[in-house]
Amino acid sequence: MATGILLLSCVDQPGIVAAVSDWVWRNGGNIVDVDQHADAADAMFFQRVEFDLEGFRLDRDQIAADFDSVANNFDMSVDVRFSDTRPRTAILSSTTEHCLVDMLARYHSGELGADLVMVASNHPQHEQICSRFQVAFHHLPVGDDPPAQEVALSETLDAAEVEFVVLARYMRILSPEFTQHWANRAINIHHSFLPAFVGANPYRQAHDRGVKLIGATAHYVTADLDQGPIITQDVTPVSHRDDVAALTRRGRSLEVAVLAEAVRAHLEHRVLVWGNRTVLFV
Amino acid sequence: MATGILLLSCVDQPGIVAAVSDWVWRNGGNIVDVDQHADAADAMFFQRVEFDLEGFRLDRDQIAADFDSVANNFDMSVDVRFSDTRPRTAILSSTTEHCLVDMLARYHSGELGADLVMVASNHPQHEQICSRFQVAFHHLPVGDDPPAQEVALSETLDAAEVEFVVLARYMRILSPEFTQHWANRAINIHHSFLPAFVGANPYRQAHDRGVKLIGATAHYVTADLDQGPIITQDVTPVSHRDDVAALTRRGRSLEVAVLAEAVRAHLEHRVLVWGNRTVLFV
Amino acid sequence: MATGILLLSCVDQPGIVAAVSDWVWRNGGNIVDVDQHADAADAMFFQRVEFDLEGFRLDRDQIAADFDSVANNFDMSVDVRFSDTRPRTAILSSTTEHCLVDMLARYHSGELGADLVMVASNHPQHEQICSRFQVAFHHLPVGDDPPAQEVALSETLDAAEVEFVVLARYMRILSPEFTQHWANRAINIHHSFLPAFVGANPYRQAHDRGVKLIGATAHYVTADLDQGPIITQDVTPVSHRDDVAALTRRGRSLEVAVLAEAVRAHLEHRVLVWGNRTVLFV
Amino acid sequence: MATGILLLSCVDQPGIVAAVSDWVWRNGGNIVDVDQHADAADAMFFQRVEFDLEGFRLDRDQIAADFDSVANNFDMSVDVRFSDTRPRTAILSSTTEHCLVDMLARYHSGELGADLVMVASNHPQHEQICSRFQVAFHHLPVGDDPPAQEVALSETLDAAEVEFVVLARYMRILSPEFTQHWANRAINIHHSFLPAFVGANPYRQAHDRGVKLIGATAHYVTADLDQGPIITQDVTPVSHRDDVAALTRRGRSLEVAVLAEAVRAHLEHRVLVWGNRTVLFV
Repeated sequence: MATGILLLSCVDQPGIVAAVSDWVWRNGGNIVDVDQHADAADAMFFQRVEFDLEGFRLDRDQIAADFDSVANNFDMSVDVRFSDTRPRTAILSSTTEHCLVDMLARYHSGELGADLVMVASNHPQHEQICSRFQVAFHHLPVGDDPPAQEVALSETLDAAEVEFVVLARYMRILSPEFTQHWANRAINIHHSFLPAFVGANPYRQAHDRGVKLIGATAHYVTADLDQGPIITQDVTPVSHRDDVAALTRRGRSLEVAVLAEAVRAHLEHRVLVWGNRTVLFV
Repeated sequence: MATGILLLSCVDQPGIVAAVSDWVWRNGGNIVDVDQHADAADAMFFQRVEFDLEGFRLDRDQIAADFDSVANNFDMSVDVRFSDTRPRTAILSSTTEHCLVDMLARYHSGELGADLVMVASNHPQHEQICSRFQVAFHHLPVGDDPPAQEVALSETLDAAEVEFVVLARYMRILSPEFTQHWANRAINIHHSFLPAFVGANPYRQAHDRGVKLIGATAHYVTADLDQGPIITQDVTPVSHRDDVAALTRRGRSLEVAVLAEAVRAHLEHRVLVWGNRTVLFV
Repeated sequence: MATGILLLSCVDQPGIVAAVSDWVWRNGGNIVDVDQHADAADAMFFQRVEFDLEGFRLDRDQIAADFDSVANNFDMSVDVRFSDTRPRTAILSSTTEHCLVDMLARYHSGELGADLVMVASNHPQHEQICSRFQVAFHHLPVGDDPPAQEVALSETLDAAEVEFVVLARYMRILSPEFTQHWANRAINIHHSFLPAFVGANPYRQAHDRGVKLIGATAHYVTADLDQGPIITQDVTPVSHRDDVAALTRRGRSLEVAVLAEAVRAHLEHRVLVWGNRTVLFV
Repeated sequence: MATGILLLSCVDQPGIVAAVSDWVWRNGGNIVDVDQHADAADAMFFQRVEFDLEGFRLDRDQIAADFDSVANNFDMSVDVRFSDTRPRTAILSSTTEHCLVDMLARYHSGELGADLVMVASNHPQHEQICSRFQVAFHHLPVGDDPPAQEVALSETLDAAEVEFVVLARYMRILSPEFTQHWANRAINIHHSFLPAFVGANPYRQAHDRGVKLIGATAHYVTADLDQGPIITQDVTPVSHRDDVAALTRRGRSLEVAVLAEAVRAHLEHRVLVWGNRTVLFV
């Protein structure tokens, strides 16, 4: 059964929890999950409230307006979501295919809580795998005009009415306009434990520094390369025996798992962005 | 500043969150942390609510009675705690000393949120280290009368007015009477990833099974050996190169960390026991 | 460039390392990797020696016979392998598809060091995904005659000249004859941290025991269910919030990674079985 | 029984393994452990050979000279060690005490393979804990003359004939002269996953970046702050709930474990430094 989800943030102050739960209660709702976080250093309060829509006295499109009575009292930022929303989703991927294939497979098995409407790449080789999974593939070569390619990408995303973008090893730098447009709606997987090894060839960098663990990080895309709010990250042990090729191979399962977990958290409306950090209600 | 903490559990039903937060609010309290869990399978609700005592309109000894008005409506189990309580604590330890020394060191550095009033052992060798940390040490040899030793142990704990017991590698089997008396107030560290390798010599068992990870588990003590509710557990990789002595060495840091985290969670009133499982509000 | 690999085991005794490396040296070989393990408890010696075939004075089919001069001196078990061998491989999988899809994806991307010649299942639903990756699929329903199904399975494997079998969530119990035939050539993924939670529904078992970590284990298949020599295993943290469905979801990436690593180790000839344990030369 | 250990490195070339094992064999030695690594990218070969001294035909002080016959053929760097050597060891620690206490506890329990002859600090507070473990404590305040304090430190280390130094949360920047003198003989614990969060307040930096894991790294000290060859590192999960104080607390067990493992590897002669990386024979 569908649920409604409120993602709330405001300056921390007494009475918020009582006021929000009272609002749900007064409208006949049953809270099925609630989690909150009071950040003492920033004096901020964050809450995720999930309640049954069955028996709820407000229609979906009345909820935001009615909740204003609570939100205004606390000067809250409010985001109203619904558990059965399946955003139209695009995957961008350059040449490395494992993150893309994992997304395709999750979509195929019905596990991905989104509608995968297109894949785009600056290279042609994912065409076959996309056609096997019956997902539209767009080859958008960069050639000698990178800005034009980004324009083509934006037009392709618009034409497909895309609402959410996953960068599954997409190796192009995006313009501030692009990243601003997709703020908090585009997730990238970077193959290092950020903030270590920003930029190109992180496994090469990790090898040359002689680290004993390699990592992967999923984050919202921002204008600053690999600097966006981190959603999930994980590591795996390596040793002196691992050359760059071995690190690349070992990182494969890690990248897939870290990206999948971040995408899932986003699609379940469990992520609140605060400055350059995330509150992740697991 | 001190806080009050309510640990609540009841059958899940609408309105609990609103009623509890409203009670805090009506009494002038400010919720500094709240976490809850609705267990769908068992239809149970668990909550931890922490609120400032400063400005709260009820005295500490009035809280439980006043909260009855809420608790009775939902047929709740209620546990009222205070953040500045430091339970009188005993450590039991046989011969292995690293968990004991870590507890002594945390007590010495002021990090342990408890008063360490005694150490007891069925062996004599911890006397020196305890005297160095100025903690009373009781040697309670087992000899040929184990039940008499347990009686002596109980009397020693009673004489020291102990409220919380940490079994830091204490290798004696305890009677049902003893474990019942200390239910939910005695934490044991077992040097395996439970439920694997219950009982004696878990590192030997792990070696002989050829596992690639070894673990440690901290749990509340119950009448069934190594079967109590798990609070914390963790693992570390091992290989075919590790004989039993190497596994024992590798497990050392793990046992110390897992036990310390469980003791901290208990002393911060973050653990609710439900059947043979724990709800751990991190 | 292709290499030869010797997997050796014998009672530990002085002079083995010198004799083996001298044999490679005398035949014009260059050792590119060597690893060994002397198990003090069992007084056994294990070695993996990898050497360039280019410039080596013996043909591939002469190696085993020529090495007898060394092997006989130490009463060694000897296994001669070649790095460019790609065994004909079958995947068995019941209904859960993520481990199967990961294997298909690695095969598709050229990463799997084996020829994937068939997939078999006791259920029909993997047919579509196999056809997307152009791998033959055999539906072998069990019906009311399990032994007949296993016979059909064996015949299918034989007809496809299969040399290596991966049980990617295959939920059938196999006969001693079958497991004996595929000894050290069939790898199973079990979705628990073995030896905890042997048998059916390990995530249910893990939930009911209240563990704080779940695991996955890849092992060679033997006649005793979930008791075979462990090749790889790993764990991931869980909490009281995770019901059985959530544990199942969290375990997905873990199972995929643990199985892939075990298959890779096997195909790179890095695993030596000793009793019920493995020596894993990473 | 004592063993001899050769730590060898040279340009990779055919015949090294055979020549070294033959030398041990000719001198009546029995190899109890051997591990090697051929680094293809750098075309370098590294080996650790451990052999029984009982029955060996050379005296300890003859070994290096006799081995020259092998070493010269391959232009090897050779380091001869003995398993029963217990280097005179100093710990430097500023105010944070958990790493120091862990070292003291391991020394007390006989687990540390070194003689702990002194502790020095730029602050006075570790005096009591050192006296409890009966280890000499030197308070070397910095005042307004940091270079003079480093001179005093060097004199104190010299007077105690120290051979190995552990920086257990020592928060002073050391001069190039000092770090050069102690090259590959001084291990530092840094409370981050290097190369992320170099320098001061890494937990603060980690908090502000919003990472989902925190780490600890043990490395040999070099003139460049936190840039030395990494020996061991590990991480632990954190969340948005963890403020800087919580990260600091969670990192405690991690720092202790990572430092202890690096010190153990060093004292067991398992670390070879190559440029800014280590070969760690586990």
